Amino acid sequence: MPKKDSEEKKITSRAEDYSQWYLDVIDAAGLAEHSPVKGCMIIKPTGYAIWEMVQRVLDERFKAEGVENAYFPLLIPMSFLSKEADHVEGFAKECAVVTHHRLEKGPDGNLIPAPSAKLDEPYVIRPTSETIIGEAMSRWISSYRQLPMKLNQWCNVMRWEMRTRLFLRTSEFLWQEGHTAHATAEDADAFARTMFEVYRAFAEDYLAVPVIPGRKSESERFAGAVTTYTIEAMMQDGKALQFGTSHFLGQNFAKAMNVKFTDNENKEEFAWQTSWGVSTRMIGGLIMTHSDDKGLVLPPKIAPLQVVILPITPKPETEEMVKNEAVKLAGLLATAGVRAKIDDRDLRPGEKYFEWEKKGVPVRIELGPKDIEKNSAVLVRRDTGEKMVVALDAVGAEVEKLLGEIQQNLLDRARAYRKEKTATVDSWDAFKTAIEEGKFVLAHWSGDAEDEAKIKEETNATIRCIPLDQPEEAGICVFSGKPSTKRVLFAKSY
Amino acid sequence: MPKKDSEEKKITSRAEDYSQWYLDVIDAAGLAEHSPVKGCMIIKPTGYAIWEMVQRVLDERFKAEGVENAYFPLLIPMSFLSKEADHVEGFAKECAVVTHHRLEKGPDGNLIPAPSAKLDEPYVIRPTSETIIGEAMSRWISSYRQLPMKLNQWCNVMRWEMRTRLFLRTSEFLWQEGHTAHATAEDADAFARTMFEVYRAFAEDYLAVPVIPGRKSESERFAGAVTTYTIEAMMQDGKALQFGTSHFLGQNFAKAMNVKFTDNENKEEFAWQTSWGVSTRMIGGLIMTHSDDKGLVLPPKIAPLQVVILPITPKPETEEMVKNEAVKLAGLLATAGVRAKIDDRDLRPGEKYFEWEKKGVPVRIELGPKDIEKNSAVLVRRDTGEKMVVALDAVGAEVEKLLGEIQQNLLDRARAYRKEKTATVDSWDAFKTAIEEGKFVLAHWSGDAEDEAKIKEETNATIRCIPLDQPEEAGICVFSGKPSTKRVLFAKSY
Repeated sequence: MPKKDSEEKKITSRAEDYSQWYLDVIDAAGLAEHSPVKGCMIIKPTGYAIWEMVQRVLDERFKAEGVENAYFPLLIPMSFLSKEADHVEGFAKECAVVTHHRLEKGPDGNLIPAPSAKLDEPYVIRPTSETIIGEAMSRWISSYRQLPMKLNQWCNVMRWEMRTRLFLRTSEFLWQEGHTAHATAEDADAFARTMFEVYRAFAEDYLAVPVIPGRKSESERFAGAVTTYTIEAMMQDGKALQFGTSHFLGQNFAKAMNVKFTDNENKEEFAWQTSWGVSTRMIGGLIMTHSDDKGLVLPPKIAPLQVVILPITPKPETEEMVKNEAVKLAGLLATAGVRAKIDDRDLRPGEKYFEWEKKGVPVRIELGPKDIEKNSAVLVRRDTGEKMVVALDAVGAEVEKLLGEIQQNLLDRARAYRKEKTATVDSWDAFKTAIEEGKFVLAHWSGDAEDEAKIKEETNATIRCIPLDQPEEAGICVFSGKPSTKRVLFAKSY
Repeated sequence: MPKKDSEEKKITSRAEDYSQWYLDVIDAAGLAEHSPVKGCMIIKPTGYAIWEMVQRVLDERFKAEGVENAYFPLLIPMSFLSKEADHVEGFAKECAVVTHHRLEKGPDGNLIPAPSAKLDEPYVIRPTSETIIGEAMSRWISSYRQLPMKLNQWCNVMRWEMRTRLFLRTSEFLWQEGHTAHATAEDADAFARTMFEVYRAFAEDYLAVPVIPGRKSESERFAGAVTTYTIEAMMQDGKALQFGTSHFLGQNFAKAMNVKFTDNENKEEFAWQTSWGVSTRMIGGLIMTHSDDKGLVLPPKIAPLQVVILPITPKPETEEMVKNEAVKLAGLLATAGVRAKIDDRDLRPGEKYFEWEKKGVPVRIELGPKDIEKNSAVLVRRDTGEKMVVALDAVGAEVEKLLGEIQQNLLDRARAYRKEKTATVDSWDAFKTAIEEGKFVLAHWSGDAEDEAKIKEETNATIRCIPLDQPEEAGICVFSGKPSTKRVLFAKSY
């Protein structure tokens, strides 16, 4: 979609102003923008196409795990939210509240919420749906034979935000939320871990974003969960971004919403539940992980458009021949399952290069009369800028190989970057320095929530997760000197 | 998903109580149910799977017309709604209004909307998005070169309803809303008609629901449209259901939201716009068109599950053999692109027949040891109940043929029913009788809105549409005797 005023704007470099760079990349690629509704964004077609790719892959994975999609109401009765104490504590402060169901002309002729249409009980726009789905499960489930019950919905949610950032933090966002009920704690926890592994694999295999899987500390847990599993990724400014979470809810919501079943010994029990979600926030993380000062960089597996073919037609007499060859090439790539298109707009080649570079298309193919004479085409990688001359009849195979290489390179590059910016420290001074330098820090922590709070106060770093792959080892808390059994991951975060 | 209390309920017959029959069919098939949120429904997995089928087909058709998906905010500033006079008139009475952005504990300890978090300007939950998308187009569009701009979003909307009916009329519903901007009135109107034809073809070719395409009279038009194109279907009680609408908006919203472009002579003009949508309401119409006293009937092209294979295993010694044969059959059908599954639950065959019948699966295959001995299987059609014995190696081809036949039969049957229940009348008495009898009525009408209102008052029938295929012919209005040039379609409606 063409734009009015930003087409020619230069992208701020990361070194100059990282936050502005991020916004410039989004703007230049036409992914999203702020709307006139405070804190809410508009996801533009190019951005939404990425979300559709995410949905397609994840939805198939969910279904393979026996999850069924459904749809539950947008509005949640205020009283539902109150039923789980931690839950209401966590969400009450950021709820959009519906209080009326009609507008009418007020005394001065302007519209006002009609006083006669005030709701007896206000509704909140769902910030998440544990309670309303729990209520349904309480009516649907009676026997262990019906368990596990695995539901998911793709929808919008709202959590009022004062300070917003496109994709990363907006009042309304799109997500999927899975909700399951199980007969045993073990089964529920195992399923929370299964979905957590689905997210990890998706982040790494599709988004090429390396993530650190772990558990949240108590203070960072989802409001109402027993265990929150999280995958945490490093952005190019060294800050962490939570990519997705999966919660083992224990029986907390089952008790709040009365989700009971009769077990195989005919005894009534509360169900064990999970919930898990990823959102459009992930797109923000995707942008921040791979993009460069020239604009967006997308991993081929998630790029809505993988290859753009640019016919170069300097002379009218060779124009038709070049265009025909481009069409042949596009057909060949389509047959190979590559998402490709021809850009034959009447613009200067340089302008087109610049545009597709900003939009992050992984491979650009340039095809001019001289190339065709030599029976070849020029392939250009977005990730490295590398150009290669390829025989025309080898383009199909070469593109497929290249897409795989780019996918792997982006993951490797992000892994190397993270490794370089991760410090293992054992003193408080080293801790503070590393956090200052924008690093991920692996340090011992005793498990004391007060120390955690003080560390946050002093350095702005939080425990991103207690990594699953960290070995048990004796140590002392880097802040308090109390004994510790494991290093945890600290970082500043989005 | 198994259910707690309705598994064994009998479906009320249509003759006994049509409204209850509809609810019973939905309940027995597990499609949807009312939620604790007034007027809002829960779409259960079986119902949602139908919506996913609808989405898949339509989304592909939209994209083929050059439409791009995007996402716009759920909330609309109250002032936006006011900008188009007819629009606000049409929607103000049914808006959910957001007035606060936080909850807090009130004096008595219960949650209340926090007085300090009252919004300066209330928001409404979108009843439709012409205004908020118009605002974005006003910033995005500057030149005729950017036109046409064709956007669509799949989302939830809310129109507060006092009297609700599952799928047909609920406060929240799911839909898609397309919004386009064009350089000329002709181009916009032509595109509104294109999408209208997409809907007509979808209703007839996929849902097997015959529809009457036409224009709405002025009083039945979308609030803010110049022309509303509609497709109207007949339910089995003779009432009409609006299946989808496509609006030519003229420049009404462009003027309200300031959507301007510079034309090829460098003159500034307001854009010409369209909007078009279909919703989960269509699923209600689908249910009402084909289902019978045994439960849901689904056309094969839209049925999430087309074939269910029931292995009949009366004796342990043949069980494995039967199950293996069922797996072979399922594989064969999958290869042929048929959506099939095996039901090998440990239940009596009769129970399974009954369940899949209620769920509307088009073809049931029964496979027992005696069938296999004879190298055959039994196929049962859901639409007619007809059984046929088919050689095992012919099942694939036979099922494909049968699915096509069922699809066609459902459309033919609905067409024949509609023909039988449509009257062409020329007197006021005949008109009243036909409407009483629950018929579609083709009658002359002069175009006078007052007469239209009086007809509605007296008979409860409204003009469903001015059919496109009715020939021009001189006549006199059946109510007022004023001259008329065309018959229009009257009916009671949902």
